Amino acid sequence: MKIVIAPDSFKGSMSARNVCLAVKKGILRVFPRANVVEVPLADGGEGTVESMVYASTGSIREVEVKDPLGRSVIAAYGVLGDGKTAVIEIAQASGLPLVAEAERNPLITTSYGTGQLILHALDQGYRKFIIGLGGSATNDAGVGMLKALGVKFYDQNGNEISKGGGLLSELAYFDDSGMDSRLNESVFMVASDVTNPLCGYNGASAVFGPQKGATSEMIKTLDQALKRFADIVYKQLGADVRGLPGAGAAGGMGAALMSFLNGRFISGVEIIMEVVGLEEKLKDADLVITGEGRLDSQTLSGKVISGVCKLARKHRIPVIALCGTTKIAGEQMDGLELEAAFPLVPGPCRLTDAMENGPIWAADRTEQVMRLMKISKRVRSIEA
Amino acid sequence: MKIVIAPDSFKGSMSARNVCLAVKKGILRVFPRANVVEVPLADGGEGTVESMVYASTGSIREVEVKDPLGRSVIAAYGVLGDGKTAVIEIAQASGLPLVAEAERNPLITTSYGTGQLILHALDQGYRKFIIGLGGSATNDAGVGMLKALGVKFYDQNGNEISKGGGLLSELAYFDDSGMDSRLNESVFMVASDVTNPLCGYNGASAVFGPQKGATSEMIKTLDQALKRFADIVYKQLGADVRGLPGAGAAGGMGAALMSFLNGRFISGVEIIMEVVGLEEKLKDADLVITGEGRLDSQTLSGKVISGVCKLARKHRIPVIALCGTTKIAGEQMDGLELEAAFPLVPGPCRLTDAMENGPIWAADRTEQVMRLMKISKRVRSIEA
Repeated sequence: MKIVIAPDSFKGSMSARNVCLAVKKGILRVFPRANVVEVPLADGGEGTVESMVYASTGSIREVEVKDPLGRSVIAAYGVLGDGKTAVIEIAQASGLPLVAEAERNPLITTSYGTGQLILHALDQGYRKFIIGLGGSATNDAGVGMLKALGVKFYDQNGNEISKGGGLLSELAYFDDSGMDSRLNESVFMVASDVTNPLCGYNGASAVFGPQKGATSEMIKTLDQALKRFADIVYKQLGADVRGLPGAGAAGGMGAALMSFLNGRFISGVEIIMEVVGLEEKLKDADLVITGEGRLDSQTLSGKVISGVCKLARKHRIPVIALCGTTKIAGEQMDGLELEAAFPLVPGPCRLTDAMENGPIWAADRTEQVMRLMKISKRVRSIEA
Repeated sequence: MKIVIAPDSFKGSMSARNVCLAVKKGILRVFPRANVVEVPLADGGEGTVESMVYASTGSIREVEVKDPLGRSVIAAYGVLGDGKTAVIEIAQASGLPLVAEAERNPLITTSYGTGQLILHALDQGYRKFIIGLGGSATNDAGVGMLKALGVKFYDQNGNEISKGGGLLSELAYFDDSGMDSRLNESVFMVASDVTNPLCGYNGASAVFGPQKGATSEMIKTLDQALKRFADIVYKQLGADVRGLPGAGAAGGMGAALMSFLNGRFISGVEIIMEVVGLEEKLKDADLVITGEGRLDSQTLSGKVISGVCKLARKHRIPVIALCGTTKIAGEQMDGLELEAAFPLVPGPCRLTDAMENGPIWAADRTEQVMRLMKISKRVRSIEA
């Protein structure tokens, strides 16, 4: 009996890796001889590196870089087992958790540290990059990152402009002649499910600005700054990112990756499933157990569970889900071909208790699910 | 496919009948052609009448009687489909919910109304009684009930003593010559799982007095009063209830039922399962679904779920449970031969939300359990 565990993280409670461990424990209590394969997943955001490194038996590199406010921070990136690919989550060097609530100000935060990580990986010889977008504290169109890679940005007086999304409004032109030449031999895959454009009502500043500390006044400034960046990029590179979906991901870093680094955008879940070889692993499985913190209407499109279901459906392997909370009806599950879903909690409780007890309750609930599956075989005359 | 639903009530949320309705709804969403048999159960307390009347296609009688404080109240009792048996929950006429928190005083509350219900049933021709003990507001050793049935209680001056547990301390003798003679042809079965003795540290007053409003001062008075009652009963009837387990049930009504009415004590669950014919109904079932509000170590002994499991085990029918909260480990479930248990909630939530949403969530969770059972058949190589 082979069971593949392929969950997302339960945000605030368990990493996907820890979900796997707990669920495995629950399975083995009931089926001690089961062949359990752990495939922690992610959606391109937090957990992407862990998931890919774990699956490919790769390793983690730690580098001292600048955080969004220019302070030193140790950031990690992953190196895959193929020895060729570096996986970088922008949240590591340029993420929201690095900036305290009161310090959040997208006028001045910079993506410089992410550029430093790329540089470090280039120095180590890596030329294949997977960039996980998600959770950035910046709104600088990736200009900080590009600066770290050797691009220079000037105002109309020919002075190099400083860091931060706000100062982009003074941008007059850039000079990419000093851009690291190793980038020409490099391939960038961008793991993201964000489809927002760079500017406007659905743009980076308006949609993601507020969580990064932008006031409505700042949003106007930032939106105009991104527009200015895009206009100049179009003028100098001929690349028009102004209407492209995804350009608004990660405070406009999407636009930078598209135009300067020729980044290929791929659904976060898809690329991760590919890198971790999920299809190969679930092909001969009897059951797939997936899961995420919240099972709701968003689950139906683009998130981890829907990706796993799609892949499993292809091979006719049944999928069940564990979750923190379920808000999804039977018919919606039928659409996904998700067979059943169970919340982890043992009864009414506070969210904080659920988060703290995640690993224990995940094992317990899995145990009950396995017990039910076991007995179901004994139940006569279940209609097919 | 035949599924028997045999749950207790979920106290404060759903009657056993409503649990059945909700669970049935969930089953039919997945197995529309399933033969679903609803057998609401109870443990001898609240729900006993409903359970038995429903199962036997009996009916309900409503009678105006005196509540524990002597006020008028409409109380119901059940008449079973056999046309011979009356089922009386003492909580109906003498129950705690009839007395507001501030009014609770076991020195004066009386079980008189329960006696009136018995009288009414005698008038209707019933001679077989099932008395569900549980939830009484009284501590009067059933003296109120006995008065309604014609027994007279006197103090040493030959004055009839008034109602209430406190005044029993003045009891000198009783006269049962006027006791309704139809009681001699009657049979009393007492549904109770309480094993407390009448007096002492584990007695009625000490253990159940506080929830009926007794202060520690009152408890002493009440305990001595019950002792006095028992001594006099022994002297006049030769029946010694002083050491008998169960005599302390329902504020000593247990003692009155034993000594004056020759009541046969039977486990609440057992007698209900017998009356509703659970064994006959589950014999050819494929699955039994039971449930109660809280699945914990108490579940292991004497409560509804353990009774259902015992019966199902005899016929090798698998049992699963639904619950409000589960606090029971896999090994404990193995002891019960309870195959699996699932809480109803969809995730972290407040107890009040869980109680309000009981019927919706019970149907939803059942649906998921059924979905899992259905798919389990498709899962290859589950180890037996």
